[in-house]
Amino acid sequence: MKEVDVKVYDTTLRDGCQAEQISFSVKDKLRIAQRLIDLGVAYVEGGFPNETTPSDQKFFAQAQDLDWGQTKLAAFGSTRRKAINAEDDTSFKYLIASGAPVVTIFGKAWDLHVTDVLCVSREENLAMIEDSVAFLKSQGREVIFDAEHFFDGYHADADYAMSTLHAAARGGADWLVPCDTNGGTMPRAIQEIMAAVVAEFNLPLGVHAHNDTGVAVANSIIAVEAGATQVQGTINGYGERTGNANLCTLIPNLELKLGRRCLPEGRLKQMTAVSVYVNEIANLPPDDRAPYVGPTAFAHKGGMHVDAVLKRPDSFEHTDPETVGNERRLLVSDYSGRSTVVHKLRSLWPDLARDDPLVAEVLQAVKQREYEGYEFEAAEASLELLAQRLRGDAPKLFELHGFRVIVEKHEHDAEPYAEATIRIDVNGQQFHTAAEGDGPVHALDLALRKALTEKYPDVARIHLTDYKVRVLDATRGTATSVRVLIEATDGERTWATVGAHQNIIEASWQALVDSIIYGLARHLGDQST
Amino acid sequence: MKEVDVKVYDTTLRDGCQAEQISFSVKDKLRIAQRLIDLGVAYVEGGFPNETTPSDQKFFAQAQDLDWGQTKLAAFGSTRRKAINAEDDTSFKYLIASGAPVVTIFGKAWDLHVTDVLCVSREENLAMIEDSVAFLKSQGREVIFDAEHFFDGYHADADYAMSTLHAAARGGADWLVPCDTNGGTMPRAIQEIMAAVVAEFNLPLGVHAHNDTGVAVANSIIAVEAGATQVQGTINGYGERTGNANLCTLIPNLELKLGRRCLPEGRLKQMTAVSVYVNEIANLPPDDRAPYVGPTAFAHKGGMHVDAVLKRPDSFEHTDPETVGNERRLLVSDYSGRSTVVHKLRSLWPDLARDDPLVAEVLQAVKQREYEGYEFEAAEASLELLAQRLRGDAPKLFELHGFRVIVEKHEHDAEPYAEATIRIDVNGQQFHTAAEGDGPVHALDLALRKALTEKYPDVARIHLTDYKVRVLDATRGTATSVRVLIEATDGERTWATVGAHQNIIEASWQALVDSIIYGLARHLGDQST
Repeated sequence: MKEVDVKVYDTTLRDGCQAEQISFSVKDKLRIAQRLIDLGVAYVEGGFPNETTPSDQKFFAQAQDLDWGQTKLAAFGSTRRKAINAEDDTSFKYLIASGAPVVTIFGKAWDLHVTDVLCVSREENLAMIEDSVAFLKSQGREVIFDAEHFFDGYHADADYAMSTLHAAARGGADWLVPCDTNGGTMPRAIQEIMAAVVAEFNLPLGVHAHNDTGVAVANSIIAVEAGATQVQGTINGYGERTGNANLCTLIPNLELKLGRRCLPEGRLKQMTAVSVYVNEIANLPPDDRAPYVGPTAFAHKGGMHVDAVLKRPDSFEHTDPETVGNERRLLVSDYSGRSTVVHKLRSLWPDLARDDPLVAEVLQAVKQREYEGYEFEAAEASLELLAQRLRGDAPKLFELHGFRVIVEKHEHDAEPYAEATIRIDVNGQQFHTAAEGDGPVHALDLALRKALTEKYPDVARIHLTDYKVRVLDATRGTATSVRVLIEATDGERTWATVGAHQNIIEASWQALVDSIIYGLARHLGDQST
Repeated sequence: MKEVDVKVYDTTLRDGCQAEQISFSVKDKLRIAQRLIDLGVAYVEGGFPNETTPSDQKFFAQAQDLDWGQTKLAAFGSTRRKAINAEDDTSFKYLIASGAPVVTIFGKAWDLHVTDVLCVSREENLAMIEDSVAFLKSQGREVIFDAEHFFDGYHADADYAMSTLHAAARGGADWLVPCDTNGGTMPRAIQEIMAAVVAEFNLPLGVHAHNDTGVAVANSIIAVEAGATQVQGTINGYGERTGNANLCTLIPNLELKLGRRCLPEGRLKQMTAVSVYVNEIANLPPDDRAPYVGPTAFAHKGGMHVDAVLKRPDSFEHTDPETVGNERRLLVSDYSGRSTVVHKLRSLWPDLARDDPLVAEVLQAVKQREYEGYEFEAAEASLELLAQRLRGDAPKLFELHGFRVIVEKHEHDAEPYAEATIRIDVNGQQFHTAAEGDGPVHALDLALRKALTEKYPDVARIHLTDYKVRVLDATRGTATSVRVLIEATDGERTWATVGAHQNIIEASWQALVDSIIYGLARHLGDQST
């Protein structure tokens, strides 16, 4: 492997787990580690193995079975406790037992934390740093020293902050990593302080930035320009409070904008997929607006912008979406023109002529439906079905004869009851089913699945993953029109559909039916899509 | 008003609307404009008034009725078309007719766009810029020149990019604003290029940054350090693709970290509330991890961090959450919000002691209900009713015996039918009514009004003005929990209520009942509120 310019140190499995609502199982962590190895990061920090974290111990034990290739596994720990030898501190036994070839030790670099939080003398803190690093070096480990609160500490007492790095250097640290633990440092201060550190040490340097003031990525870039050759961060920026430097933004910036190689040749294209994968495992709502990897990162809406992008992609795109494995999206809306629609329809019918009458028909239908409250920007599956219906070759999986949804409540404090019945015809055979649900739409979803399952057992593979409701023209109270967006997956890919109506049940029904037809048609293989 | 150091130019109502899924009504825009005036930004860009945007024309007409105070309204437009005089270009008639005292004109600063997208000569482009600015100045407007793609243009041809700013300066522009339209420029380039612009011009400068590479806030800060005294951005960073510079991050950074006054004294505390308010109107999932204003911004999870923060808040907080109107959350034991609750309850019971047991009861109930999906931030009427119920003095206007809602659809193409029946007891008398509606909630609303009208004729004065639905925990498909917010008015004042449940009909019912009880109680005069 050609040496990279900047080593990527991923701490998704440790600092990322400090994020609210994230809690990875050991199996989750192993899957993410494998994905990070495939991506080609230099270091994967696996956790903080000690007596109180049995799952981290388990992870390190099982991680031995992965093929680490060029990636190195790191264990995270703190400096030794006060007034004992490092080898007598049980926490170091766990670090060694983890089997990780790299150990990252954090120590206090801000005098306030030394005296008021850790409650040791300034001198003892320096000894704790030096001893801890020296002991780990004596055990043959690569040692990274994370200087916690370094930038705040530098403001408070620059000499003392520097002396903590000197202590680590004396202990034999392989890397010194100033951390902006509270995330409150501005870019100019990062620039000045990193320059001072570079001038003082002849050791490889890293940077560890938090995003509390929205500048973690910029601060990391500035540190690299000042001389850092390691960046610490997390996939999707997960981390305590507002998170860590987002590697899905930072890596592309370093590679594409600064020309610094961070990953092995050709791996950058995995960035979008890695972001989606880790997000799925974290089970958090995705950040649609994430730079480079989010679904809106290369989405164009305004008519002028769409025309310009089709003429010259670089007119409104700072980079080619394919470099990071993402794609351009032209949002089909009332404002969009013929070019957008032609572009879309050619994904279904590659030979479609620009002046095919279907184009005008679809444009007209989109305009009419958007006026009624539909929105196709985020519902590309419904747009495809609409085009197929206009062309007369939409999949006909069933015919509706009727449905009924009932919600009842019997006393002030009673729980409501929701039931749906449905009658459909599948290839001449009638199905009449009923189901109870958590709410009316859930009941309808269950009843429809019951009715379809005999003829289309694949329906079980389709899961709704998102259900969004938007009330339109909200000034008209409850008689307003309602738009429902449904996102679904079959485990391989996802698609989104839309429905709109004054009646929320009808709007939901439309989106639900499109969603299931689109998903089933793919599995039946009877569609060109 | 003491002069600010950096003027905030908000373009939420124009560039913010380029964001996927955002479409503000005229009323939404007026509400947001009022909130921005209260916040004290220097400029509010209201839209792009022209013949194809009747709703923007309407906004500018109605915006005249707001009290703008120290804030100035800006209209946005492009340079004149080629080969005509600015005064003959109809688009300028709309800009003047908007009545906005400030006009922001964007022009091309990147030669690629001039020749390949706009398709005019480089000289004609300069004339278009100069003429457009000069014409607007002759009409007595303050003119801001937004140099589109300035930084990319500077890389391609620095002299030409500079000449576009010179053209605007010759035309008499009051401000020159280099834009990073594609959002691909790195901080160091911003620093260097802004320094070159500062050296060349003796005019006030601004900056307009997009977030495609995650550095829009940092780039804006760096531009201010280089000499810019105007920052353009949007609330919550809404905007085309990945969005614009997020003012909810940028303003606190400039005020708290750089010591540059952006808002009138004391207004920074509104930042969190403004973020929430605009997000509610946009009806988008909030960004929980937003710096400064997000719910996780000061949320502490790790035990060590929680202990340290309790010892010394600055140990893991870069600033006091109250400076931006946010609060610390300790995820283990959350006792935030007590002061807010006391403050609220005193509007009902002015003499309530801070340690009255009711305060703890309400706090506990709010915490429980927020866990279940309720949200009282925007639903103060429901909060008041909740407190009254806990105290045992809530208005008892009727008792529910039951309701039933039916939605039926008989054929694929048939319109659905929605009917509600309801049984209530009003002072011992039974009412059993039925109504048909546009949808299930509308039917329920009508049936309830029918049942109440004999005993409470004032119910006719209450109108629902807004109905919003938000799906919570959107990763669980249609079985998720749903929050409904209802806003109502009696023509004199408005109030908002909330309901939450897995069943959307039940959630709507809760909000509907609170809404009508709250409104009727005011007219019965039996409440201290």
